[in-house]
Amino acid sequence: MSNNGYFASECFSVEDNSLSQKKKITVEDLFSPHFKIHDPEAKWISDKEFIYRNQEGTVMLWNVETNNSSVLIENKKIVSLKAIRYEVSHDREYALFAYNVEPVYQYSYTAYYVLCKIPYGDPQDLYPPEVSNTKLQYAGWGPKGQQLIFIFENNIYYCAHVGKQAIRVVSTGKEDVIFNGLSDWLYEEEILKTHIAHWWSPDGTRLAYATINDSRVPTMEIPVYTGSLYPTVKTYHYPKVGMENPSISLHVIGLNGPTHDLEMAPPDDPRMRDYYITMVKWATSTKVAVNWLNRAQNVSILTLCDATTGVCTKKHEDESEAWLHRQNEEPIFSKDGRKFFFVRAIPQGGRGKFYHIAMSSSQANSSNDNLQSITSGDWDVTKILAYDEKRHKIYFLSTEGSPRNRHLYSASTNGNFNRQCLSCELIENCTYFSASFSHNKEYFLLTCEGPRVPVVAVHNITDLQKIFDLEVNENVQVAINERQMPKAEYKRITIDDYSKMQFAVLYLRLDGTPGSQSVTEKFEVSWESVMVSSHNAIVIKFDGRGSGFQGTKLLHEVRRRLGILEERDQMDAVRTMVKEQYIDKMRVAVFGKDYGGYLSAYILPAGEEHQNFTCGAALSPMTDFKLHASAFSERYLRLQGIDNRAYEITKLAHRVSSLKEQKFLLIHATADEKIHFQHTADLITHLIRAKANYSLQIYPDERHYFNSAALEQHLYNSIINFFVECFKVQDKIPPPPIKEEEEED
Amino acid sequence: MSNNGYFASECFSVEDNSLSQKKKITVEDLFSPHFKIHDPEAKWISDKEFIYRNQEGTVMLWNVETNNSSVLIENKKIVSLKAIRYEVSHDREYALFAYNVEPVYQYSYTAYYVLCKIPYGDPQDLYPPEVSNTKLQYAGWGPKGQQLIFIFENNIYYCAHVGKQAIRVVSTGKEDVIFNGLSDWLYEEEILKTHIAHWWSPDGTRLAYATINDSRVPTMEIPVYTGSLYPTVKTYHYPKVGMENPSISLHVIGLNGPTHDLEMAPPDDPRMRDYYITMVKWATSTKVAVNWLNRAQNVSILTLCDATTGVCTKKHEDESEAWLHRQNEEPIFSKDGRKFFFVRAIPQGGRGKFYHIAMSSSQANSSNDNLQSITSGDWDVTKILAYDEKRHKIYFLSTEGSPRNRHLYSASTNGNFNRQCLSCELIENCTYFSASFSHNKEYFLLTCEGPRVPVVAVHNITDLQKIFDLEVNENVQVAINERQMPKAEYKRITIDDYSKMQFAVLYLRLDGTPGSQSVTEKFEVSWESVMVSSHNAIVIKFDGRGSGFQGTKLLHEVRRRLGILEERDQMDAVRTMVKEQYIDKMRVAVFGKDYGGYLSAYILPAGEEHQNFTCGAALSPMTDFKLHASAFSERYLRLQGIDNRAYEITKLAHRVSSLKEQKFLLIHATADEKIHFQHTADLITHLIRAKANYSLQIYPDERHYFNSAALEQHLYNSIINFFVECFKVQDKIPPPPIKEEEEED
Repeated sequence: MSNNGYFASECFSVEDNSLSQKKKITVEDLFSPHFKIHDPEAKWISDKEFIYRNQEGTVMLWNVETNNSSVLIENKKIVSLKAIRYEVSHDREYALFAYNVEPVYQYSYTAYYVLCKIPYGDPQDLYPPEVSNTKLQYAGWGPKGQQLIFIFENNIYYCAHVGKQAIRVVSTGKEDVIFNGLSDWLYEEEILKTHIAHWWSPDGTRLAYATINDSRVPTMEIPVYTGSLYPTVKTYHYPKVGMENPSISLHVIGLNGPTHDLEMAPPDDPRMRDYYITMVKWATSTKVAVNWLNRAQNVSILTLCDATTGVCTKKHEDESEAWLHRQNEEPIFSKDGRKFFFVRAIPQGGRGKFYHIAMSSSQANSSNDNLQSITSGDWDVTKILAYDEKRHKIYFLSTEGSPRNRHLYSASTNGNFNRQCLSCELIENCTYFSASFSHNKEYFLLTCEGPRVPVVAVHNITDLQKIFDLEVNENVQVAINERQMPKAEYKRITIDDYSKMQFAVLYLRLDGTPGSQSVTEKFEVSWESVMVSSHNAIVIKFDGRGSGFQGTKLLHEVRRRLGILEERDQMDAVRTMVKEQYIDKMRVAVFGKDYGGYLSAYILPAGEEHQNFTCGAALSPMTDFKLHASAFSERYLRLQGIDNRAYEITKLAHRVSSLKEQKFLLIHATADEKIHFQHTADLITHLIRAKANYSLQIYPDERHYFNSAALEQHLYNSIINFFVECFKVQDKIPPPPIKEEEEED
Repeated sequence: MSNNGYFASECFSVEDNSLSQKKKITVEDLFSPHFKIHDPEAKWISDKEFIYRNQEGTVMLWNVETNNSSVLIENKKIVSLKAIRYEVSHDREYALFAYNVEPVYQYSYTAYYVLCKIPYGDPQDLYPPEVSNTKLQYAGWGPKGQQLIFIFENNIYYCAHVGKQAIRVVSTGKEDVIFNGLSDWLYEEEILKTHIAHWWSPDGTRLAYATINDSRVPTMEIPVYTGSLYPTVKTYHYPKVGMENPSISLHVIGLNGPTHDLEMAPPDDPRMRDYYITMVKWATSTKVAVNWLNRAQNVSILTLCDATTGVCTKKHEDESEAWLHRQNEEPIFSKDGRKFFFVRAIPQGGRGKFYHIAMSSSQANSSNDNLQSITSGDWDVTKILAYDEKRHKIYFLSTEGSPRNRHLYSASTNGNFNRQCLSCELIENCTYFSASFSHNKEYFLLTCEGPRVPVVAVHNITDLQKIFDLEVNENVQVAINERQMPKAEYKRITIDDYSKMQFAVLYLRLDGTPGSQSVTEKFEVSWESVMVSSHNAIVIKFDGRGSGFQGTKLLHEVRRRLGILEERDQMDAVRTMVKEQYIDKMRVAVFGKDYGGYLSAYILPAGEEHQNFTCGAALSPMTDFKLHASAFSERYLRLQGIDNRAYEITKLAHRVSSLKEQKFLLIHATADEKIHFQHTADLITHLIRAKANYSLQIYPDERHYFNSAALEQHLYNSIINFFVECFKVQDKIPPPPIKEEEEED
């Protein structure tokens, strides 16, 4: 039925019985150091050197030519400062440390900062000249010497070198209302996907920064129950569907001499009356590339702006009948800025468009750019990594082998665009890679992210040989060898034979926002691994319509009817498995969080005649897209007013009225700043009205992203206990039909 | 151990097996008209007439001398106006109807009002002169003719008769801040226990009203999640422990001629710097009795104030080492105001004080009053009903027979104070009465409230003969005859034999605020009846230390240590029942709401070695008394600052850390304005930390007092399902130890 070739599903079950002497994975394991993948956070700082942090926490400098490493900052220094974050100045003379780090949203945080001379200098506080002993919203080095900026009360301060007085270079900030150089909530979570909204020119002489004005955005009020005699209210600007959005402008200031603040002119296009800036990237020291996206998110304009005049020239325009996807990705420029590479969707036949590298070259005295596609085919380029001008090579990651894979490829940028897989045969049991290149592209750090335990090594581009292993995560490998690990099987809807009947099937789709992907070959040990290992569950992930990396036709089909097609596809997948008797139709559960929470609650009451779902859990679900962020909901359901019906039919309230037999667990943190508790409150009123069978778990005053391992552990235990109990009760009351058949035999 | 004579417990179990052909009580029954006790709301309006509403909803006037009744307002009139409340003017010419009634707190509401000439007049809107089409906070007739007042925006309007323009007689009101003639939240819920804070003089020439100023009281903010795109916040003044209280003053205005607002002078007593007014009652047309209570609630002064001068004379003073109880009750005055009767606690030996009628008589030219006790003994007068000057009789209700009973008594007010029970032999199976007397005390309406199905009849005082039945609730009697009803047994700790082992024991104490009583012989069909009838539970109520009507020693013992003694006593009761093998110690549950919710959560983790409790549920529990209303917490735990330790040791957080094996259901409405959701939010953070096993049910945007039968039904089903499931799982997993013993035999 849905076996039309382009769906992928993933099943986890425990390995064969001979391994049952091994330990099972527990929730405690997930939080134990034995299961902690160490990320060395390696960062190239020159043609041949990179900085990283080793397992002991020491910050090291490695020279790949001499193969020598040296200690930059000892771990005990970091520990003594109680610092969580560190950064080394461009000249390697100073380190910047952040302590008392307090998360704001997903990426943003406030912290105290100190500067220390490397290696043993005493800490010097970093404060604005007018205030002492205060937390900052940001501090970071520039690309030259010891220059740095920091942000306080939404104003930007510049310090030319350590010891020199910081000067305020941007003063228009207003706390919580006008943001300079930083994202507001919407830009951080939905548009830029980072809190950083400033960009150094490569020579360090200029700084581009965004000004985001929230003064016309309605405020959201979140109650804070604990910690004071009277509950307090946390207030911030959050545009719900159809409400006024933040306005954004992009500015450039000079850092040598007078700052001379200049705004980059937005496209003079009637379609861009209300716009987002989704990407900023310096092409050269005077030119900055900016991507502008209209509010409906179906028209984007890529411009190249002259930082000295503010004049922007259109370099590319994109339009979509549905929404435009992947608008954050940075182009890669040639040194002179005349040639650049970027990813765009191009038609590849019946499955719609796929994302490929386009090369834009401009002639010195011509206004017409030449645009060429470097890659093509029914697979996606997922990331452009580097452009080697000397070798005429572009390096990138793609799904060419399979949507589940990420391999490192090179392609010629001239002639026939010859393509070569660099990672395909490199490491056994490794199909999911990421990579970063040294400044001259002679070396690259290659990270294998799965299916095996992740490893990081430095390679030479000439012969691809591994120079040395930076991280092998041996401790995790040992821990995993001792345990019954989930075995992954990947299917295209038709499911192969399983060695034994499983007690339960957990059927889940994690955070499946349109364009995301559940089924990859990335290494992961999660609470689902516990379900498989300790509770004999089979975990299925399935990327149906709406998922990414399988062409825009599949992706865009869910538009204006979120849930309907996802339900159909997921039901098809389950039905297929049930039909082939791999799973018991009475024992299927569903789980999802965020948008996936919406889907799981949407799907749970489905399939009455087949009774496909017994239990379902939704973590911080969206339940009414009108209540969610403008940029998210409008992307998939269009602007309200244009399409009220889309908002009406996607309300979960309509679905839960038929939720009777199924057990449903609803989990939400009350101070969730991303998907408001309001969603769950609204759903509960309908669950009560429908007399539905549901359980509730709330986390008072917790936010969307938990900041405590103890709470995460509690969360995983809650979900696991719910599913175990749900199937246990199932077990006891009506004897499962399959067992009865066995007895009759 | 606790068998020291003054505890009372109550057990409900199903009647014997021969009745098992009868239907069981269901939650649906509780909301069916068959189980609805009809209250005729009868109200005497003269020596021989009263108004009431019959089963059909028609408002009737009954003359007990002629035994004739006449229709005042037809039900269809009330229905056509969509009116919920009605009131007839003193001259019986007009009726006042309220529609679109919207509850504010427990008693208060806003509504639109219309006046209709009786019987068929067209409705005339009642609005303030300056605003039309607006809801009022109050409207009601005065004691003469057609005079009426209404309250709008906390200002009082007077209308001398229908058709005459209303005039604003009190203008100092400020919405939600300065209340005239009405209670603020604290006075309504905790002090006056009504929203009405104005009192007509008996001749209708004067109005006493309270001004309650909340401007210095901190505000509470309650989130409202549903009904709008952005959640809103409901704000009102609520003094938590130690915070500034509302200030109150009592004023009298004249209604004939110039209003001349006069404040009654509060007692000039250093102990009364911060005070409550707990009772106001007109003695004569110019004298008003006022009870003043200090903030610590251990000193009260009863004064008689001259409404023409504002001068108040102390008539009685009371002081307690613990808190003063029953401060709302009105004295009853002789016509000339020189003699009055009131209830005060007087020592009765080892069990402390009991509440008895005191008679205060003043001589014309003497400042000394003569105070005599009319009753005495180790029982309480619960209400003084009427004083018959002609017969020298005082009528009252008391617990003389048993704390569980309320019988109607008379006592002579001269001579030897001869006492006589008027209701004791009157109605079969009736031990719990209330009554109201006609103006000349020749007749009385007697309501039997239990144990039988409630009935109301009119009696003659001379021979006590019933003149006629006003209401017999036959439909309820029929419904009950068809069902397996709980059978109540009353014990003093030692429990008699039961005919069979019960599946579960539900052990509960409903809303057991200190001074309240769980065990009475009032008729009640509740969700607990469903537990008994449909789920074979035994329901136990037990009044231990802290409960009322058994002497102040028992009452006051819980002071400064709420929970500790209650736990001990309840545990003793359960232990006794377990020891005597009437209940299975593995199958005991506990339930409570409000303060009882505190107790149930406090008690649930108790008795580890005995494992006395398996499941517990708490509805809108107080979890930290600091977060609750000043007047409540300070009454029992003293003022904060004086006794911080009492607040510290009564935090539920300390108890739930040992909550591991027990299953716990926590229920709270998120917009609970009385016991804030904050209590439950705070408790949950500790439950999560303790990894306790708990379930949660929230009612988004609902208030403390549910205003919807559907929600109440949902609530009862939630509690019942929780207990049934809790014991069902118990049933399945470890076989109960008692059964094992049987097998061994």
